Amino acid sequence: MGDPEPIGGFGSRVAAAVAATGPLCAGIDPSGELLGQWGMTDDAKGLRQFGIRCIEAFAGVVPVVKPQVAFFERFGSTGLAALEWLLVEAREAGLLVIADAKRADIGSTMAAYATAWLDPDSPLCADAVTAVPYLGLGALQPMIDLAGAHRRGVIVVVRSSNPEGRVLQGALTRSGAGPSVEDMLLAEIAQANRAGGAPSGTVGAVVGATLQPSTFPLPELGGTILAPGVGAQGASAVDAGALFRGCAPGSVLANVSRSVLAAGPDVRTLAAAARRARDEMGEALA
Amino acid sequence: MGDPEPIGGFGSRVAAAVAATGPLCAGIDPSGELLGQWGMTDDAKGLRQFGIRCIEAFAGVVPVVKPQVAFFERFGSTGLAALEWLLVEAREAGLLVIADAKRADIGSTMAAYATAWLDPDSPLCADAVTAVPYLGLGALQPMIDLAGAHRRGVIVVVRSSNPEGRVLQGALTRSGAGPSVEDMLLAEIAQANRAGGAPSGTVGAVVGATLQPSTFPLPELGGTILAPGVGAQGASAVDAGALFRGCAPGSVLANVSRSVLAAGPDVRTLAAAARRARDEMGEALA
Repeated sequence: MGDPEPIGGFGSRVAAAVAATGPLCAGIDPSGELLGQWGMTDDAKGLRQFGIRCIEAFAGVVPVVKPQVAFFERFGSTGLAALEWLLVEAREAGLLVIADAKRADIGSTMAAYATAWLDPDSPLCADAVTAVPYLGLGALQPMIDLAGAHRRGVIVVVRSSNPEGRVLQGALTRSGAGPSVEDMLLAEIAQANRAGGAPSGTVGAVVGATLQPSTFPLPELGGTILAPGVGAQGASAVDAGALFRGCAPGSVLANVSRSVLAAGPDVRTLAAAARRARDEMGEALA
Repeated sequence: MGDPEPIGGFGSRVAAAVAATGPLCAGIDPSGELLGQWGMTDDAKGLRQFGIRCIEAFAGVVPVVKPQVAFFERFGSTGLAALEWLLVEAREAGLLVIADAKRADIGSTMAAYATAWLDPDSPLCADAVTAVPYLGLGALQPMIDLAGAHRRGVIVVVRSSNPEGRVLQGALTRSGAGPSVEDMLLAEIAQANRAGGAPSGTVGAVVGATLQPSTFPLPELGGTILAPGVGAQGASAVDAGALFRGCAPGSVLANVSRSVLAAGPDVRTLAAAARRARDEMGEALA
């Protein structure tokens, strides 16, 4: 979107946007519960009203927004039409968008998901999309390739902040002799960002802010780290600062959804809550 | 849909349908490549034309169809509208539908995906949906609960047939002292089917037909096994029969997509290909 840097991929687009505002990704989560709290109807019309309030509040305040696709998908094609409209509004407001879709598949099917979320001709095209690596990081390659070709990103869910995921993500590869699943994936992501097929910074990772430090050195990831779990889920900004110490400026985005959205529907109080969360994270990650 | 059995959940609905026809799930995969081969345009109109040929060919021949959501999602809301239309057509034709969406998330977001794919009031409602367990089987509970309440199913991708997934799925839990990720998940699925919260048969698993036998005894899963990898990807029906020996009648569905769809667009040749695949699998799994 008019970024003058000739190289660097999605990661450098995020870093530039973070430098201009601060390290916060604001979730757009129009759940039935939040729509009710905001006095909006739980339907596609409510989704649009909710979304435009978020765009108005977050534009110029935070660098990145993250619509949660599931809440739109609840209403099928009319819900996705609301998301398409929201993506246009976000782009026109100068916000980067991570579509939180957590897609997973293989081969031509993964390529189809890549087209849906990252092809500039798709009505759902975002700046990045989240993906789930249960089928192996290699299965995400068609999505990584398309992302790299358009300076867009794939943010891979590696270390989730929910307790139910710990056993699987901490399992040891190679009959117990290899790294954990999450450390293996982080190393593979770092390798993908170094490999040269796609620009550096094409592949990012979700790393929950409530977790213990990982064995893999996060400053070597080479892509954007999206860190949920600050705020409503419990980690203080100080904890997050320790977890991500040494990461390059602009490479870590704290994701905050419910704790900011609770300040809506008033656009000014919503913007103020986002600004507070942004400044708090900016200090912790400085 | 009018099934008279008072108990038994999704698994018993599948078993009844398999008993009437045979153990085949026919994929509906309108990729750009297949649409071209069938002489159809690569757009939402092509999706509908492709889908209706599949429904005409498969109705009464196979018990279950599996539309691959990614190929519809490529076209955003108009693609999903085509899928909504196809779901109605499939239901009216008496086919059970597994929406192959491979969704993954946690908490209220997972509940939203459950609403999208399993709530009878949703335009995308199917008889079952596929899900990915990277965030832990426990994270899928809101989807399992909604499925159980409506005699619908959640088919969890456990052992995928692609080579890139082997290292992660075979990693050993509990610092190497526990079962592999896939064996742990199969045991957790069996437990969910026994637990009584949802009807038995609510939770199924994807188990690739090209793989070695699992340590977990598949006949104890208590839910539908969806087995991709027969045909185009390499396992013969005989291999699949060995892998699933001892599983209850009607509990294993071989999934075949490309090798059958290659026989289109003529409805009669497409139906004949599905019938051959169904009969071959029926003999192997008898």
